[in-house]
Amino acid sequence: MRMVEVSHVRALIARRGLHHVLSELADYIEADFRRWPEFEKSPRFASHSKDGVIELMPTSDGERFGFKYVNGHPSNYRRGLQTVTGFGVLADVATGYPMLIAEMTLTTALRTAATSALAARYLARGDARTMAIIGLGAQAEFQAEAFRAMLGIDCLRIFDIDPAATAKFQRNLDRRGFVIHVASSAPDATTGADIVTTVTADKQHATILSGNMVGAGMHLNAVGGDCPGKTELQPSILDRASVFVEYTPQTRIEGEIQQKPADFPVTELWQVIAGEARGRTRRDEITLFDSVGFAIEDYSALRYLLDHTTDERLHRDADLLALPEDPRNLFGLLDVAETSIALSLAS
Amino acid sequence: MRMVEVSHVRALIARRGLHHVLSELADYIEADFRRWPEFEKSPRFASHSKDGVIELMPTSDGERFGFKYVNGHPSNYRRGLQTVTGFGVLADVATGYPMLIAEMTLTTALRTAATSALAARYLARGDARTMAIIGLGAQAEFQAEAFRAMLGIDCLRIFDIDPAATAKFQRNLDRRGFVIHVASSAPDATTGADIVTTVTADKQHATILSGNMVGAGMHLNAVGGDCPGKTELQPSILDRASVFVEYTPQTRIEGEIQQKPADFPVTELWQVIAGEARGRTRRDEITLFDSVGFAIEDYSALRYLLDHTTDERLHRDADLLALPEDPRNLFGLLDVAETSIALSLAS
Repeated sequence: MRMVEVSHVRALIARRGLHHVLSELADYIEADFRRWPEFEKSPRFASHSKDGVIELMPTSDGERFGFKYVNGHPSNYRRGLQTVTGFGVLADVATGYPMLIAEMTLTTALRTAATSALAARYLARGDARTMAIIGLGAQAEFQAEAFRAMLGIDCLRIFDIDPAATAKFQRNLDRRGFVIHVASSAPDATTGADIVTTVTADKQHATILSGNMVGAGMHLNAVGGDCPGKTELQPSILDRASVFVEYTPQTRIEGEIQQKPADFPVTELWQVIAGEARGRTRRDEITLFDSVGFAIEDYSALRYLLDHTTDERLHRDADLLALPEDPRNLFGLLDVAETSIALSLAS
Repeated sequence: MRMVEVSHVRALIARRGLHHVLSELADYIEADFRRWPEFEKSPRFASHSKDGVIELMPTSDGERFGFKYVNGHPSNYRRGLQTVTGFGVLADVATGYPMLIAEMTLTTALRTAATSALAARYLARGDARTMAIIGLGAQAEFQAEAFRAMLGIDCLRIFDIDPAATAKFQRNLDRRGFVIHVASSAPDATTGADIVTTVTADKQHATILSGNMVGAGMHLNAVGGDCPGKTELQPSILDRASVFVEYTPQTRIEGEIQQKPADFPVTELWQVIAGEARGRTRRDEITLFDSVGFAIEDYSALRYLLDHTTDERLHRDADLLALPEDPRNLFGLLDVAETSIALSLAS
């Protein structure tokens, strides 16, 4: 069983380049979205507690089974911990054997950004050059890099209520070739932007974007609203926009459209990618990608890691499966002769 | 995040002794069954394919969240692979951080046997000394060792339709102090037995035990019937026995009682352990533990491993969680200076 740790994902990015990894990952996601009906889609399993939620997100295409373990604990930030961490597993459906276990904190940030940029390639105006980013937490730089890699966006208008987050963002993207305008407010950030990415972290209904900030022809990439009770957009914006989602049943619970009735019209992104539905139809149309993150994106990311970490310096082996020579002789693993190594370790 | 691999579980058993590990594990299971109502109980998530099933079995007591990944692929045996493999994870509910990932092929065999013996301690006659075991596959020796460790059972009457399985069982338990009678048939095995353990592997309705093999005062430990369509007992036996189960909704689907109507009376084992229901009430009563395996047993096993593998020779560290110093600065992990180690690995 192959294990891809954080250091391996960092090494993979260092070796291939962040732009390449983001573009390649988007290609994997695009290929899987194109064959969307082949996947088994289940609601995520969620275990809620007073501090947060732990989720298991499974899916399968009949050849591979994948799932992600992910937590969401807004209060972790105050303890100096990550709000969201995770790992993922890819298994062979024919044998049931796990093949890969991988870190999915960095990888989730990568796949979320790649999915956002992929959606924008279908939904934003082709001449979009300027993106506003509101919310400069853990995900923000990944979003910026993915939009540059895939759409050539290099002008950023950024805003966060916390100056420390803004400084961190600027420091991280310094000398990486972006033209960055630090906005004085969210409305200032959106002024003149072709694309607006909202990626704030508060677990509550907030109005990060109000109607007067959203102009004709904009593409909105709403990433931060991703669980019940957590939204970022004034509901009136949804009425003016064409809304695109990942998996409708999940987004109705977790996305911006939780503010709307159950029959509020949406289009699934995979339909646009597969040519079954139209994306943007007019220059002055307002498009919205109401992103919450779906298991198939994690599946694609795990598939990408499986294909690109065969080099022994990009993984290590985890001895997590007991595989006796005779499958019925599991007890033989405890045989004195066979446990000599274990015994010498234990003595 | 601590990782307990197969070699570590073997070393733990070599160091503490198999009997101690089985007894201690049963103590953990007993303690958790006693506080059963505290646990979040969900049906397992199952992804079925033509070759088998992949399952995720989650539970939580509000302090720790645990789940097991487990497959069931009967045809694996013909490919020289394990029918059942798995691994488990224990996480901290307050932060959502995974604490432990552990192999759960050996560990599942240990916890299944410990649960069986624990149930028998409440349900079998106190003077039971002889156990029949029908089905000598991967689980059989673990069952024998657990019943000796916890009930002092040292006379075994064994039977398998495959002589190679019988030879393997005898070889493994040779010179371990059992008196073993190799029976010529299943009825021969059960003759004079106080306890009968059935642990066959075929994924079909089979009649391993028929009514005339079951006498007054016997305790039946039915381990092999554990999924829809797979049973081992003639239905008439269920009518004569007092039936004990782990988690009723799951056992009605997967256990021997799937052959009976939805209102067939059963008692949950935890109720007996907690003193809320009676176990065996008469010497001549036939008791049946209709075991299918439940998530809380895995949780107990993971808790046991967490407590007993702190020694650095009994685990290794897995770098599966990206933990930047500033939790909002995930992107900083890709910083050139910080990835120097990764770069040197990758160059």
